[in-house]
Amino acid sequence: MTAVEIIAKKRDGNKLSKEDISFFVDSFISGDIKDYQMSALLMAIFLRGMDFDETASLTETMLRSGKVIQFPEPNEVYVDKHSSGGVGDKVSLILAPWVAACGVKVPMLSGRGLGHTGGTLDKLESIPGFRTNLTLDEFRRGVERVGCVITGQTPEIAPADKLIYALRDVTATVESIPLICGSILSKKLAAGPSGIIFDVKCGNGAFMKNLKAAESLALNLIGVARALGRHVRAIITDMSQPLGRTAGNMLEVIECIDALKGKCAADLYAVTIELAIEMLDMAGIERDRRKALAMLKSRMDDGSAFRKFDEMVTYQGGDLSKFMERKLALKAPVVMNLEAKLGGFVQSFETEKIGRLIVEMGAGRLTKDDAPDLRVGIVFHKKIGDEIRQGETLAEIHAKSDSSAEHAVSSLSSLIIVGAEKRAARELILKRLM
Amino acid sequence: MTAVEIIAKKRDGNKLSKEDISFFVDSFISGDIKDYQMSALLMAIFLRGMDFDETASLTETMLRSGKVIQFPEPNEVYVDKHSSGGVGDKVSLILAPWVAACGVKVPMLSGRGLGHTGGTLDKLESIPGFRTNLTLDEFRRGVERVGCVITGQTPEIAPADKLIYALRDVTATVESIPLICGSILSKKLAAGPSGIIFDVKCGNGAFMKNLKAAESLALNLIGVARALGRHVRAIITDMSQPLGRTAGNMLEVIECIDALKGKCAADLYAVTIELAIEMLDMAGIERDRRKALAMLKSRMDDGSAFRKFDEMVTYQGGDLSKFMERKLALKAPVVMNLEAKLGGFVQSFETEKIGRLIVEMGAGRLTKDDAPDLRVGIVFHKKIGDEIRQGETLAEIHAKSDSSAEHAVSSLSSLIIVGAEKRAARELILKRLM
Repeated sequence: MTAVEIIAKKRDGNKLSKEDISFFVDSFISGDIKDYQMSALLMAIFLRGMDFDETASLTETMLRSGKVIQFPEPNEVYVDKHSSGGVGDKVSLILAPWVAACGVKVPMLSGRGLGHTGGTLDKLESIPGFRTNLTLDEFRRGVERVGCVITGQTPEIAPADKLIYALRDVTATVESIPLICGSILSKKLAAGPSGIIFDVKCGNGAFMKNLKAAESLALNLIGVARALGRHVRAIITDMSQPLGRTAGNMLEVIECIDALKGKCAADLYAVTIELAIEMLDMAGIERDRRKALAMLKSRMDDGSAFRKFDEMVTYQGGDLSKFMERKLALKAPVVMNLEAKLGGFVQSFETEKIGRLIVEMGAGRLTKDDAPDLRVGIVFHKKIGDEIRQGETLAEIHAKSDSSAEHAVSSLSSLIIVGAEKRAARELILKRLM
Repeated sequence: MTAVEIIAKKRDGNKLSKEDISFFVDSFISGDIKDYQMSALLMAIFLRGMDFDETASLTETMLRSGKVIQFPEPNEVYVDKHSSGGVGDKVSLILAPWVAACGVKVPMLSGRGLGHTGGTLDKLESIPGFRTNLTLDEFRRGVERVGCVITGQTPEIAPADKLIYALRDVTATVESIPLICGSILSKKLAAGPSGIIFDVKCGNGAFMKNLKAAESLALNLIGVARALGRHVRAIITDMSQPLGRTAGNMLEVIECIDALKGKCAADLYAVTIELAIEMLDMAGIERDRRKALAMLKSRMDDGSAFRKFDEMVTYQGGDLSKFMERKLALKAPVVMNLEAKLGGFVQSFETEKIGRLIVEMGAGRLTKDDAPDLRVGIVFHKKIGDEIRQGETLAEIHAKSDSSAEHAVSSLSSLIIVGAEKRAARELILKRLM
């Protein structure tokens, strides 16, 4: 068994064995197989595909390349959520403390903004002092003590994935479903949950533009996790407009605090509570949907969801009261409204382009060394199906300068489509897979 | 235009522009594009293919990465031959001096043994003093003065091909027709011929096992050369048994000397003279087939073909009389016969396996640092269709030790198939393409 033979096997469309995959990945980590050989294999995988068994072997090998956290038994209660990413997707910040307030333990390793999408870690860093670089010990202790922790991948977690991802990024082998599955699952499983619920976003603001692609990713995640003996479910949710009222780091944290205090946009609430119900079920805390709904509602109403968020922020070094005090002072220097030129109904959003616009305004990174501007972003006053009068505010731009604001207003005016046709609000939960 | 965009373009099955290809290859040579990016592109090319235009752009870029020899005008007379490789394929050693004796100028850059096939340079190095590492100046002067030179690729010739070939070898991207075309043509065209005749070998001793594969390679070579404005033809010839009577470095040189003196195996003669007729035509020396045949026959009979070979050997530092004197002394220490266990007719040869057996006996390289044993090899007494009596010699093994000889006799006995059925001799010239 040589590197060349394994590459040729996949190149010719044959199935790789568990031994082929672990030999290749292990030898790559040790340096015996070179990066140019890994990139040839990655391209062969991209074009030839891999089945569940192969993807499971890849995932397991990457997982075992680093540390895997073990929580004490019985561990059914440790459940994580992962989203495939979208614009304004701030669900984790509300969901994790909410279900933790119901007794779920949420060991969540999150990421930075990628492409046109925002990143949970970037958002949380708008809270003064908040640390997203906990050690594995701090992470594990926090999950036990607080119930939820949201931090970044540590160097000990799936180092093989880190090395392989860096290669994929520069060799045009990112958008491969088996490689995406392996990358997501190896990191997520290393954090030690017994179950994971996937929120696969679907639509023009997601990486998966249509239901077929989203379903394919969801089925792969489930099939592979199952081959590894893990408990996984997925729901496919709409991402054809920004989720909730805001997109932009600090703006989204403010929106989440409002939501945790009971003032939540309808679409954001609907997606979050759906995921929360699944997590309570998977954690074995409440399997009855109606009872789960009631439990969640009461934990929101009695303030315990918000207190859990505050507790998590405090555990991770942040100061929420300081954030609330300073949020006015830290507001973006220029706020400019986009007004509707004509009255009618909001028809659609060019969501990915809106995501890119927000990145360009400074909220994301154009190169990997950029520090995101935490203040900039957009507040959406109207969503698909909403009626709007001529001159009424469609959206509010928070920018770092006049010129940036003017550019954003002008761009955004062609990215939110208003028309005469009455439109129903979008269906949010498109499919449930388990 | 970035490396990743170009890789993605080919990955998705799109056509690369001339600019894409030259940017990618030039940046690879300069080090701005990394080897792991090149190997991802090579795998994408392997699986998605390239058309004539793309292959021509690749060839031209690799060609221009180094020096390109220019012979004085009018240059129609400079014609080279290239074989895709087989077992016992010693045609170049006879063909080059033969057509040079008729006035063709043959600027031939040759290679070493590859896989199960022998290499022209290895064979020539069994002649004491023969240099296969001429400088470009020595090469060019030799072509003008002697009429033919056979030497190795210099570092100035197509360095891009050298770098890319080294990567292909370790990333399972060797057997791709556009990449093979680019590699062969960039080297061959750099040597400055106005025309090239390709001898595409076909059969169980060739890289192309069937007519379809051989034809595809031939059509690609012709199409690409034509897109580059060069004059190219191809003939597809049989390689379902070793060509001529011998395989092994020194044994083949002795066979060639005999052939140039008028004692040539029928199959070797038939293939060589067919190529010679094409070269006389392409060089504009004799376009009439019957007259070409007569000219070739007379240059063989009057000894001028052999004298041209002697002249080339002398120019390249070799001493043919010393070789002829020493050939008995340098004979392999053990010569052992393989005798027919039953009488009948020779049915077939397992030609590739015979080639590998000869490599294992020491005639080739198992690693790139091995020095081939020039003495070892096999003399074939019978070919397909020949009648043989029980106990008669089928082949003669020249080995470096008793144990090697015994192993070879035992292996070879199952690689030459004898049976009762009468068989016609093989058709040698399978197809002519121009």
